[in-house]
Amino acid sequence: MTGKQCSSSSIRYLNQSEAVALDQDLFNEYKFSVDQLMELAGLSVAMAVAKVYPPSLYKSSLIVCGPGNNGGDGLVAARHMKLFGYKVAVHYPKRTPRPLYENLLHQCKNFGVDIVEQLPHPKDLINDYNILVDALFGFSFKPPVRDELKPALDALLDSGLPVCSVDIPSGWDVENGPNTDRALKPALLISLSAPKLCAKPEFLGDAKHYLGGRFLPLGIITKYKLNLPPYLEQEQVVQLSC
Amino acid sequence: MTGKQCSSSSIRYLNQSEAVALDQDLFNEYKFSVDQLMELAGLSVAMAVAKVYPPSLYKSSLIVCGPGNNGGDGLVAARHMKLFGYKVAVHYPKRTPRPLYENLLHQCKNFGVDIVEQLPHPKDLINDYNILVDALFGFSFKPPVRDELKPALDALLDSGLPVCSVDIPSGWDVENGPNTDRALKPALLISLSAPKLCAKPEFLGDAKHYLGGRFLPLGIITKYKLNLPPYLEQEQVVQLSC
Repeated sequence: MTGKQCSSSSIRYLNQSEAVALDQDLFNEYKFSVDQLMELAGLSVAMAVAKVYPPSLYKSSLIVCGPGNNGGDGLVAARHMKLFGYKVAVHYPKRTPRPLYENLLHQCKNFGVDIVEQLPHPKDLINDYNILVDALFGFSFKPPVRDELKPALDALLDSGLPVCSVDIPSGWDVENGPNTDRALKPALLISLSAPKLCAKPEFLGDAKHYLGGRFLPLGIITKYKLNLPPYLEQEQVVQLSC
Repeated sequence: MTGKQCSSSSIRYLNQSEAVALDQDLFNEYKFSVDQLMELAGLSVAMAVAKVYPPSLYKSSLIVCGPGNNGGDGLVAARHMKLFGYKVAVHYPKRTPRPLYENLLHQCKNFGVDIVEQLPHPKDLINDYNILVDALFGFSFKPPVRDELKPALDALLDSGLPVCSVDIPSGWDVENGPNTDRALKPALLISLSAPKLCAKPEFLGDAKHYLGGRFLPLGIITKYKLNLPPYLEQEQVVQLSC
C-alpha cells in the first residue's frame, strides 16, 4: 500500500489564521499535548520522506530545524528517520529553551543523530548528504527571515539537493507561496493535518505533495470544512499529487 | 507490506524487573515523555489489531482499559482505531486521576468513542462487538486481581470473542504465563518495545504475536541484549509468529 492518490482538485486550503486556530483547537478543545501531536506529525514526515526518498537510495540526510514547532517536528522526524535506516544529521541553529525541545534534541543525540553546529558552504552539502529536510519555518512564519537563520535557509536554497519541506516551504508566504525571486523549490512537501494555501498546485509545480498528521477528529474536519482525501488502511500519510 | 515475519526462535524475552528497568531508562536516560511513548505504543496496537482484524470485517470493537499505562495505551489505541474506521467503545472502570489519562479519555469522547460505564453479561458482548482489546494489566501486574476489576477481566475471559492483548494477556503472570485454571486465551498479543517472558511460544499457543512500539535506541537494544526482528521499511509493527 502506498497511500497514493493523485487528485487535489477539491481540497480546501487553510489560510494562516485558520491554521493557527485549528492548531489551538487541538490543544484547547481536544486537550492534546504538543508531545503527542509532534510525535505523530514528525513520524508522518519521516514516513513520507522514506516513501519518496528511501534510505536504500538516499542514505544520508540533513534535517534543518527552526526554533518553533516546525523545528520540533523536524527533530521527531530525525529520530524516526534514524530508526528507518538513514544516516541522519540535524542542524538546529536557534534552539528553544523549553524542556520538550531540549528533550527532543537529547533523544536525537542518544539515537545517534549527528548534530551539525556549523554548516559547510551550501554547494558543499552535496558531498555529505543525499537529501535535506526543511523544518525551518512553519505556518506561523512572517517575513523577514532573521539574520541568524539566513545561513540555514541558504543551505536549503543553494545546495542543489532535493528538499523535503515540512508543512510550509521555508521562506514562502503561508498564503501566497513563493513570492520572492529567490524562493525555495522543494521536491516534496508534507502538509500536516491540512494543507495551507501555499500548498496549492500552482505554487508547488512538479513537487510531490503528501498529507500527514492523521489526528484530526470529525469535529475539526466539519468546523473547518476540510475535504481531506481518505488515508488508506493504517497509513499515516496520503499522497495528494504525483 | 505486511511486516510479516514468522520466526521467534532467537528472541530474548524480558523478565519483569528488566521490563520495568527498560521503561525507566526510556524516561530517565532518553528523556521521553509518557505522552510520546504512549502515543507510539497505542498507534502500533491499533495497527496490529487492524492488520489481523480489519475494520471492514470486524467493525465493532470494545477496548477494556485498566488504571495504569497499559490502560493508557488502550485509550490511545481506541482513538487511532476510530480513525481507522472501527466503531469503538471503551470500558474504563478504574480511572487514574492524572491529567494525561483524563486528556486521553477526553480525546476518545471527542473522537466519537463510546464510553461504556456498565458492561453487559460477558456472554452478551457478542451481540454488540466483534473484537475485544485487552488493555487491563501490563508488565507491572502482580496478582491478585482487585475486586473492582474482576468484571472487566470476566468480560475478556468469557465473551467468546477474539481478544487482542496489549503487551501482557491480563491476569497472566508476566514471567510464567497462564498459571491459573481460568486464564485468558488471547487471539493476538501485541508486545510493546520487547516481548516479556510470558510471550514465549509455549504460552501463546496458536495466538498471533506482533511486536510494536518502534522506539528503542541502539543503546537500549545493546544494554538488554535484545535480539529484535527488523521492522520493514516504515512499518510500526512486525509479526513474530503466524
